[in-house]
Amino acid sequence: MPLKGNLLVGQSGGPTAVINSSLVGVIEEALKHPEIEAIYGCVHGVQGLLREEIVDLRKEKPGTLKRLKTTPSAALGSCRYKLKADDPERLLQVLQAHNIRYLLYIGGNDSAETGHLVGDLAHEKGYELRVMGVPKTVDNDLEYTDHCPGYGSVARFIAAAAMDAGKDSEAIGVVDNVKIIETMGRNAGWITAAAALGKREERDAPHLICLPEVPFEPDRFLSAVQNAYDRLGYCVVSACEGLRDAEGKEVVASKRAIDTDAFGHRQLGGVGDFLCDLIATNLKIKARYDKPGTIQRMSSALASKVDLEEAYLVGKAAVRSAVQGVDGQMVTLVRESADPYRCTTGLAPLEKVAAAEKKLPPDFISPDGTFVTQAFLDYARPLVGGLPKYARLEMHPIEKKLS
Amino acid sequence: MPLKGNLLVGQSGGPTAVINSSLVGVIEEALKHPEIEAIYGCVHGVQGLLREEIVDLRKEKPGTLKRLKTTPSAALGSCRYKLKADDPERLLQVLQAHNIRYLLYIGGNDSAETGHLVGDLAHEKGYELRVMGVPKTVDNDLEYTDHCPGYGSVARFIAAAAMDAGKDSEAIGVVDNVKIIETMGRNAGWITAAAALGKREERDAPHLICLPEVPFEPDRFLSAVQNAYDRLGYCVVSACEGLRDAEGKEVVASKRAIDTDAFGHRQLGGVGDFLCDLIATNLKIKARYDKPGTIQRMSSALASKVDLEEAYLVGKAAVRSAVQGVDGQMVTLVRESADPYRCTTGLAPLEKVAAAEKKLPPDFISPDGTFVTQAFLDYARPLVGGLPKYARLEMHPIEKKLS
Repeated sequence: MPLKGNLLVGQSGGPTAVINSSLVGVIEEALKHPEIEAIYGCVHGVQGLLREEIVDLRKEKPGTLKRLKTTPSAALGSCRYKLKADDPERLLQVLQAHNIRYLLYIGGNDSAETGHLVGDLAHEKGYELRVMGVPKTVDNDLEYTDHCPGYGSVARFIAAAAMDAGKDSEAIGVVDNVKIIETMGRNAGWITAAAALGKREERDAPHLICLPEVPFEPDRFLSAVQNAYDRLGYCVVSACEGLRDAEGKEVVASKRAIDTDAFGHRQLGGVGDFLCDLIATNLKIKARYDKPGTIQRMSSALASKVDLEEAYLVGKAAVRSAVQGVDGQMVTLVRESADPYRCTTGLAPLEKVAAAEKKLPPDFISPDGTFVTQAFLDYARPLVGGLPKYARLEMHPIEKKLS
Repeated sequence: MPLKGNLLVGQSGGPTAVINSSLVGVIEEALKHPEIEAIYGCVHGVQGLLREEIVDLRKEKPGTLKRLKTTPSAALGSCRYKLKADDPERLLQVLQAHNIRYLLYIGGNDSAETGHLVGDLAHEKGYELRVMGVPKTVDNDLEYTDHCPGYGSVARFIAAAAMDAGKDSEAIGVVDNVKIIETMGRNAGWITAAAALGKREERDAPHLICLPEVPFEPDRFLSAVQNAYDRLGYCVVSACEGLRDAEGKEVVASKRAIDTDAFGHRQLGGVGDFLCDLIATNLKIKARYDKPGTIQRMSSALASKVDLEEAYLVGKAAVRSAVQGVDGQMVTLVRESADPYRCTTGLAPLEKVAAAEKKLPPDFISPDGTFVTQAFLDYARPLVGGLPKYARLEMHPIEKKLS
């Protein structure tokens, strides 16, 4: 028997270039099912839900959804909130007060945890609620899914940034010798690795990739930089903000107390400047850094078409599953075929998703730890789509006539 | 009587997304004129020319030029080199040795100075040489031209970055309260100002623009940030890396000796981190920064079509003028009509261009110094082309049912 009632959707965690595409997928699918009455959104994720800040999405203007699909960031507002002991109880009260029977939460593993806790409590109390997770994270660190919506776009941005910054260094390497691109990522190097996706030949950037999966050793780093610089006259490094030393301690992070979040994470950032200092001091060669920061996860100009489309599909699939009776699951992406690339959707329990974190597997990292492998490139290239082919002059020298 | 001989083209200064479009313009126009025999390029600008490092551009493959037009950065290699006393003499020897009669130098005011000195010496020595400057600089700080090729594209990147980072802050403002976008620019705020080009309403970023033309005063800055934050719950600042205090001293610059260039300029960068510290310490609100660095001047995905086309045109116009007998001039862009936007080319003496630097005029800066005016927006918008229109939900709240 169909479960009649209201649907509530929320967005959580770091915004992405495509998380609104998932929101539109949820809304458009919900509109098709008569058992779904009101379509609500909660403002700033569970933080707004705790305060009963709910908006009526059926009242939005018709043209808004179409434009929203390609608008980056989380239109409902996002949050980074760790549930307190009493919170699930309160959340359930709010859901019950508004006869919400379908809870769709778009986010990463913290969001899966939230959904799981609320769903469990509902079962316990005998309130019929179907909770579905919609995957979203630029970090690409969710297990049980081939990849995460949001990753293809940030990967495309970083691939293009490395191509562009590489062209810059190649032209001006006589002046600025080493360039660091500081990329996002706390524990997993997926974004950092994406810098390699536009590389076609040795001169192309990046020449070195520093992943959080590989303990950072200053001496090894410096000799790799020196080596590339000696060979090419310039060197471009993609370095993860979450680099860690052999003891697993972050190499750089904010020392400001204000910069520790609800999950106890210190704000990262500063790896670029740190590495530039290291290079200037030890190698006496000039280095500068680019830190695209939040721009990398948010660029609509560089959003991947595949990513936008898949983000939309997982939103739709989550609603469809919930209507069919599925509960407590996150929609996953399943690669059916590598070439031609084809993905379909699957399901994984929220509880399992919440507890896991997917790092770059060893076979995606080169044996010496300074680059990615062909296996990684094969995995990631279909997710970002085509990249431009830049020209390079052949540079036929003419004969010198002077001494 | 036509001047028969060889043409040499070089690229200088910071690369841009469109400087290769100018190079293609020069080559394609040169190919049309029978009096131009060899078409040469010098590698890394005058630095390569001093070493007689010259390449034959007629030997490049046919398909290369087409792709080169949209390839960012300087394909011949660039330099940042201050001429020494003996250098013009040596440069002239090289030009004479290779029967170069047309010297085309693509660059900013330092390049204009180089062209002017070499041209003067050639006249003095009775060697017939026509020197033409092709304008290029993301900084948009050349006088005598409405704007500079390269600027429209970096402006488009920064406008999009502010739109995207603004959307991010709007969604996650509950967590990351203030965002600084650190933009390029040593003395002129053209790039920093471009952050305003995508702003349509008060909530849109940026909320504050810190220009090098306006002396930086920490107290005034902090109260403007607090004000925006109190109103909106978040705040995005576009801040120039070249910010200066009331005494004209750079607020932040590298302290590393290695980071001082041939012109005595210290490498800039660090304003973002500096402002974040200032905010966290004094306002106790969380701030982070994005520093797109060299990516901003190099993004092919965000290159402006108008900019690409104009860069091509000034390259062609320079060759055409030289063939017609013009010498010692830089091609300029002249705005014939504001709406619809239409530009044609003009000429200005290299000597004058070399000596001048164009800052943001007072009527482009708001009276309180914290934003740009409509006059600036009207000036810059046609140069960057259309920007996306992002959607925003209307957010119709439903009635609360709980306490």
